[in-house]
Amino acid sequence: MTAICEIETRLFAVPLAEVLSDAKHGDHSHFELVTATVRLADGSEGTGYTYTGGRGGHAVRAMIEHDLAPLLAGADSGDVEALHEAMQWHVHYVGRGGIASFAISAVDIALWDLRGKVGGQPLRAMAGGAATACRAYCGGIDLGFPLPKLLESVRGYLARGFDGVKIKVGKPNLAEDVDRVRAVRDLIGPDVAFMVDANYALTVDQAIAAAEAFAPFDLVWFEEPTLPDDYFGFARIAEATGMPLAMGENLHTIAEFELALAHSRLSFIQPDASNCGGVTGWLRVAELARRAGIPVCSHGMQELHVSLMAGQSNAGWLEVHSFPIDAYTTRPLVVENRMAVAPDEPGTGVTFDWVKLAPFELS
Amino acid sequence: MTAICEIETRLFAVPLAEVLSDAKHGDHSHFELVTATVRLADGSEGTGYTYTGGRGGHAVRAMIEHDLAPLLAGADSGDVEALHEAMQWHVHYVGRGGIASFAISAVDIALWDLRGKVGGQPLRAMAGGAATACRAYCGGIDLGFPLPKLLESVRGYLARGFDGVKIKVGKPNLAEDVDRVRAVRDLIGPDVAFMVDANYALTVDQAIAAAEAFAPFDLVWFEEPTLPDDYFGFARIAEATGMPLAMGENLHTIAEFELALAHSRLSFIQPDASNCGGVTGWLRVAELARRAGIPVCSHGMQELHVSLMAGQSNAGWLEVHSFPIDAYTTRPLVVENRMAVAPDEPGTGVTFDWVKLAPFELS
Ligand SMILES: [Mg+2]
Ligand SMILES: [Mg+2]
Repeated sequence: MTAICEIETRLFAVPLAEVLSDAKHGDHSHFELVTATVRLADGSEGTGYTYTGGRGGHAVRAMIEHDLAPLLAGADSGDVEALHEAMQWHVHYVGRGGIASFAISAVDIALWDLRGKVGGQPLRAMAGGAATACRAYCGGIDLGFPLPKLLESVRGYLARGFDGVKIKVGKPNLAEDVDRVRAVRDLIGPDVAFMVDANYALTVDQAIAAAEAFAPFDLVWFEEPTLPDDYFGFARIAEATGMPLAMGENLHTIAEFELALAHSRLSFIQPDASNCGGVTGWLRVAELARRAGIPVCSHGMQELHVSLMAGQSNAGWLEVHSFPIDAYTTRPLVVENRMAVAPDEPGTGVTFDWVKLAPFELS
Repeated sequence: MTAICEIETRLFAVPLAEVLSDAKHGDHSHFELVTATVRLADGSEGTGYTYTGGRGGHAVRAMIEHDLAPLLAGADSGDVEALHEAMQWHVHYVGRGGIASFAISAVDIALWDLRGKVGGQPLRAMAGGAATACRAYCGGIDLGFPLPKLLESVRGYLARGFDGVKIKVGKPNLAEDVDRVRAVRDLIGPDVAFMVDANYALTVDQAIAAAEAFAPFDLVWFEEPTLPDDYFGFARIAEATGMPLAMGENLHTIAEFELALAHSRLSFIQPDASNCGGVTGWLRVAELARRAGIPVCSHGMQELHVSLMAGQSNAGWLEVHSFPIDAYTTRPLVVENRMAVAPDEPGTGVTFDWVKLAPFELS
């Protein structure tokens, strides 16, 4: 018997070690973590989760509790893809992205955790099994860091064993961005992968100017140069400059990814399983990327994405995000020989340390 | 002093007189109504609202209470457009459509209610002031009605003084849809406006076949023939058949409306102020439609949209929806000489009958 009998939802506001800033979201003092634990009639359980930059967590929890949990009560947990579809249609009128995507993601990840535990399979195997590790880079929410602190932060990434780094751009003055990019490239040398991220702070014309100014610094990609909704604007930037572009953290439906892959001339796509429909949604995007001939990358929650990325034949780079969700699990991200290593444990391999999280729980 | 000191949010689950069905959302037994009352330091107040088909209301309420109300506390209520932008950016990472659009809409409508009350202006004047009334049609969630009941329902629309009617299509068998469309046209005669709505139940090819089969019946429009995300699919249907197409109730951001107006070959656009950003969002869409040279229509909450529609130089048809929100206000929709008449009262002119709603409030 595998009927779902309960979904327990918990909401945490986890403080960051310091206030972090980017070009469009302002200051981050904490992140929100919403966990969803699906329990079956036979006592087995799986846990999924999503996170936010500090807003919307109450709404995510409300949707899981009031809309998704009643829908799934009594359902067979095994047909994850069918339950995923049922959730999408159940909240379609208020959904298709936004909070619904976050809520569905948390439950979907819980169902994959259960699937893996029941079947004795780690997520990397269920996700394609191409490899056991993947390339990884560290990205900081560091636009507010003065240059010396920025360089110290990048040195820290290298010291932790990574050979890829990403910094924020989008200062009011392009010259300052260029100075920061140059200083980082000088610091890391020619062999470390280097990305920049504007969090869509620029107009298309500004982004073209920035891409041209960044050209000497051999960037792997320029992330979200302009608004994620402006699918055709991305293409204009890529066509005008030849700069490789990336986006995905702000695409929440398969239809949005299809638009981006068809019209935005992306070189990399960066779905986030916490907001694109969980493991089911992320794997669909990975398959769309394969068909489009580009690598799939990730945004945020490295402790889960390491398994999804390791599974792909077209794996790009795992983002190691500065929201340290993995610090609240029993297995913070493992890096060996400059590669991020996926866990072997059946299920997602993400087990929360509830005692460590407890002080941050919201009622 | 016009600082915002409180936003009171209430959630109601209002039962329908009977269970209603359409092609994609299944059965509706009730609708959810979320009200947001903004109170100022000087004691004045304005009320806005949104509604759902029965799911997501708790999440909407949670976002208003936990994310939007804290943002607006202490702000000057008068600069509605600036507050609207601030709300959009505040929840951008979990927003851009979905629940955030519903939550922002409710608060935005409350701010317009306040603006009108403070300035002594009715919404139709603030919304452009083109006229005091607009054309209106009745639409039912009637796909489950057997033909005799469907015709009885349409007769009821005419008896209420309307000269436009809309029915659902999307039966498993196109021939049955055609029979129903023919029967309704025979009943209403050639002079009554007639629309159909598939709630995106069809593939593009099915929609082309349906549009061809409906051609003899002089439809004003064919609404949501296919998935609202398939902007280019709409264009293929319009190009293949010449059938006038309409959509909008499932577009929740200005970017989505821009995509639809640029690529979908629509003949009508149907924004719903309850889910496209309130009065501010609806007026932006009306202006985009003017520039695109097509009429703006509406979806749902006729008691509010009548004022927005009356204000427009490019007003199309007001939908009189079968969720009877107006029955819970002190002024149910007024129809005179086959036109829907906008209220003269300062503010939105929508005043809830809280006593009548009280039995349906959720804690
Ligand atoms: Mg980013
Ligand atoms: Mg409709």
